[in-house]
Amino acid sequence: MAKALAHPEIVSLAAGFVDHETLPVEPTRMAMEAVWADPERARAALQYGGTSGYPPLREALLERMLRADACTAEELNLSPGQVVMTPGSNQFLYLLGDVLLDPGDVVLCGAPTYFVYLGTLSNLGARAVGVQTDSEGLIPEALEEQLARFKSDGQLHRVKAVYVTSYYDNPTGVTTPAGRRAALVDLVRRWSRTHKVYVIEDTAYRELRYYGDDVPSMRSMDPEGDTVVVAGSFSKSYSPGIRVGWGILPPALVEPVLAAKGNLDFGSPNFNQVLMAAVLENGLFDPHVETLRACYRAKIDAVLKAAEQFLRPIGGLNWVRPRGGLYLWVRLPEGVDTGVSGPLFDRAANEGVLYVPGAVCYPAEGGVIPGNMLRLSFGIPSCAAIRRGVEALARAIRQVPR
Amino acid sequence: MAKALAHPEIVSLAAGFVDHETLPVEPTRMAMEAVWADPERARAALQYGGTSGYPPLREALLERMLRADACTAEELNLSPGQVVMTPGSNQFLYLLGDVLLDPGDVVLCGAPTYFVYLGTLSNLGARAVGVQTDSEGLIPEALEEQLARFKSDGQLHRVKAVYVTSYYDNPTGVTTPAGRRAALVDLVRRWSRTHKVYVIEDTAYRELRYYGDDVPSMRSMDPEGDTVVVAGSFSKSYSPGIRVGWGILPPALVEPVLAAKGNLDFGSPNFNQVLMAAVLENGLFDPHVETLRACYRAKIDAVLKAAEQFLRPIGGLNWVRPRGGLYLWVRLPEGVDTGVSGPLFDRAANEGVLYVPGAVCYPAEGGVIPGNMLRLSFGIPSCAAIRRGVEALARAIRQVPR
Repeated sequence: MAKALAHPEIVSLAAGFVDHETLPVEPTRMAMEAVWADPERARAALQYGGTSGYPPLREALLERMLRADACTAEELNLSPGQVVMTPGSNQFLYLLGDVLLDPGDVVLCGAPTYFVYLGTLSNLGARAVGVQTDSEGLIPEALEEQLARFKSDGQLHRVKAVYVTSYYDNPTGVTTPAGRRAALVDLVRRWSRTHKVYVIEDTAYRELRYYGDDVPSMRSMDPEGDTVVVAGSFSKSYSPGIRVGWGILPPALVEPVLAAKGNLDFGSPNFNQVLMAAVLENGLFDPHVETLRACYRAKIDAVLKAAEQFLRPIGGLNWVRPRGGLYLWVRLPEGVDTGVSGPLFDRAANEGVLYVPGAVCYPAEGGVIPGNMLRLSFGIPSCAAIRRGVEALARAIRQVPR
Repeated sequence: MAKALAHPEIVSLAAGFVDHETLPVEPTRMAMEAVWADPERARAALQYGGTSGYPPLREALLERMLRADACTAEELNLSPGQVVMTPGSNQFLYLLGDVLLDPGDVVLCGAPTYFVYLGTLSNLGARAVGVQTDSEGLIPEALEEQLARFKSDGQLHRVKAVYVTSYYDNPTGVTTPAGRRAALVDLVRRWSRTHKVYVIEDTAYRELRYYGDDVPSMRSMDPEGDTVVVAGSFSKSYSPGIRVGWGILPPALVEPVLAAKGNLDFGSPNFNQVLMAAVLENGLFDPHVETLRACYRAKIDAVLKAAEQFLRPIGGLNWVRPRGGLYLWVRLPEGVDTGVSGPLFDRAANEGVLYVPGAVCYPAEGGVIPGNMLRLSFGIPSCAAIRRGVEALARAIRQVPR
C-alpha cells in the first residue's frame, strides 16, 4: 500500500475496493432529498435507533432476500426480528465470532478464504482450519474429512462453524452451485447432532453478478433456519462509505448477538440505515446495481482478455473464469513464490503492478499452503489500467528464474 | 422501556436521549448540499476511508479542542495521527478497553459513573472499582486511598485506568473544576511510576454547557500527553443518528488501538465523517450548539423549578444543580429504595414517570452502594412534561412508607 501511494503510476490489482467513478452520488443525493422531504423521518434519521437497527430497512432486506430466493418468510422460518444491522458486515462477523467462539474454538474455512476474516478469527483467539476447494467452492468430502478428523481426535465440540462466501468468492471468484450448496448444508446439519455447527454464509458479492443466473442462497436450503447464518452488505453493491451491513440469525443467536452489539456500540448509525431504506424504497438501488454490473462486466472482460493475451502464452498458469465479484484467482507454475519476500512481488512492483500474494488467503492449519497463487482485484482500475497491470505482471513472471 | 412504550402518557425521565425537536435537520441538509457541490468529495464520502478516519475531520477536531483549551498542538504534544474516529465514542471506549485490559484488570470509576461503561468493562472481563465522589467529581484523596489499597495488596499492576466524565457527568451532572482536574492528573501520574495508569477523560457533554464558563480539559493538564486519553462524540452535541465519535490517544496507544479497530471493522463509515467535516467547515456546528443550549437551558430550568416546587417540600431530598448536560441526580431520604423491585419504582410508573434507579450507576466494588439515589434525564421531554414528571415523582415518593 505504501508503495502504491508513493508511485501512483503503479497499477494496484491488490486492494479489494470498488470502482470510484460509479459510486452512487446521484442516487444517494436523491434518496437524501426523499428523507428531507419527510420531516418526521429526517428527524428519526438523526436520532438514536435501536440495537437491532432501523425496522423498515430490516424488513426490506428480508423481503429482498426472500424474493431473490423465491421463498416466503414462513417457508424459511424467518422474521425481521432475526435481522441485525451493523456498520459493514465485518462487524457482524466479529460479533458472531464473539458469541460463538471461545479461544481455541475452530471455524472451518475454504483454503483459500477471505483473509480479513482470518484476522478476525485470530483476534478472537479462534483457529481457522482450511477445507480443500475446487471450482465449485468447498468440497463436501474434504469438509467431511476435516470433521471426521476432529471427531476422531475427540475435538469435534471445538468446531463451531463453517464459513462460506457463497457468491463470487474472495479470493477465488467461485460461486458454489445449488447442488453443492445443498450438500454442504445437509452435511453440516448431519454433523450438528451432538452439538451445533453453524454455516456462516457471506453473501457480500451476491448482487455483483455479470454472467449467468442467480443461485438460491444456502439459507434457503435450511428451511428450519437453525443452521445457516447470513452476512450481507451494501458496501460492494452500493457504497462502502455508507457502510451498512447486516446479519440474519437463527432464533437462538438473536439475543446473544444483540447483547454483544449492545455492549459494543448499542446500535449502528441510524442515519445511514434510513438513507439506505430510502434508496431501496425509491427504486434507486436496482438501477445502480445495473450500472455497476455494466462497469464491472467490462472490467472482468478486460482482465480475462489481458490474461489470455499476456499470461496464457507464458505457459503453466491457469485461472477460473468468475461470473461475478471483484477477483481473479491465478495459479502460477509450481515453484514460483508469489509472497512479498519472494522473487516475483518486487519485480511486479518494479514493472508497475501490485497483487495480493495468495498465501495470505489460506488458514494456517488444514493443509499445505501453496506459494504459487495470487489474487488480482479489478474493482478500482480502469480497463486500460487493468490491461497495463496484467501486461506488467506477465513481464515480471517471465523474469522469475525457474 | 417496555412500560414507556406501552403507556405513551408516562413521562420518561429515564432514557439519556436527546431532544427530538432540535435535531439538526436543516444544518445537515445544508452540509449535505455542500458535499454534493464538490463531486470529488461526494465520491470520497461514498468510498472506503482509512482505519483512523477522515483526515480533515480529525484535524478539525484537534483544532477545536486546542482552541477550547487555548493551547497549541506543540504545547500538548498532539498531532492528528493520534485521533481515531469511531461510530460513537462507545466503540472507542470498547476498543481502548480491549487494548488496555486483560480479564481481571481494574478501571477506577466514580461511584456513581456512566452505567453503559460499566457494561463495557464487564463484557471485557474487567473490574470496575468505585471511587468516592463529591460535588466536584472524583475525590483525589479517595482515589489515592484506592490506589494505596491496591498497592498494599500487591495488586497495583492490575489498575490500568481511571475513568472520568469531566464535563456535566452522567449521572451526577457534576463538572470537575480546573484545580481538581489538575490534582487528579498529577496524582495518576505519580502513581504511574512502576507501570502506566491512564486517565480516560470522557468529554461527551462538553458542548452542552448552559451556565458558567468552559473548563480546560484534563488533557490540557497533561502536556507530555502520555497519561490522558480523550473520548469525544457528536452524539449529544449534534446528532446521535449520525453517530460520529472519536478518541485522542497517547502516542504509545495509537498503533494497538488502530490494530483492534482494523480487526473489528477496518474503519468507521466515511460518509458520516465527511458530512460532519462539512458541518464544521460550513459554520453549521456552533449555531446548532447555541440552539441546543437554549433548548436544554429551558429544560434544566424546568426540572430545577419543578424539583424546588414539588420535591423540596417533601423534606430529606437533595440534588446538585448542574450547569450543563442532561441529568439531575437526586438523593432521596435514607432508607427509600429506588430500585426496580423497591416500593418507589412501580408507584412512580403508576403515577406517570420513569427514572433510572441510582444503584445501576455504581461499580460493584469499592464501597457501599446507596439505594436511595435516582437519575432524572431531561433531554427528551418538553418542559411541560418534565414538570408533570417531577410532580408525579413527588406524589410517588409521598406514598412510600418510611
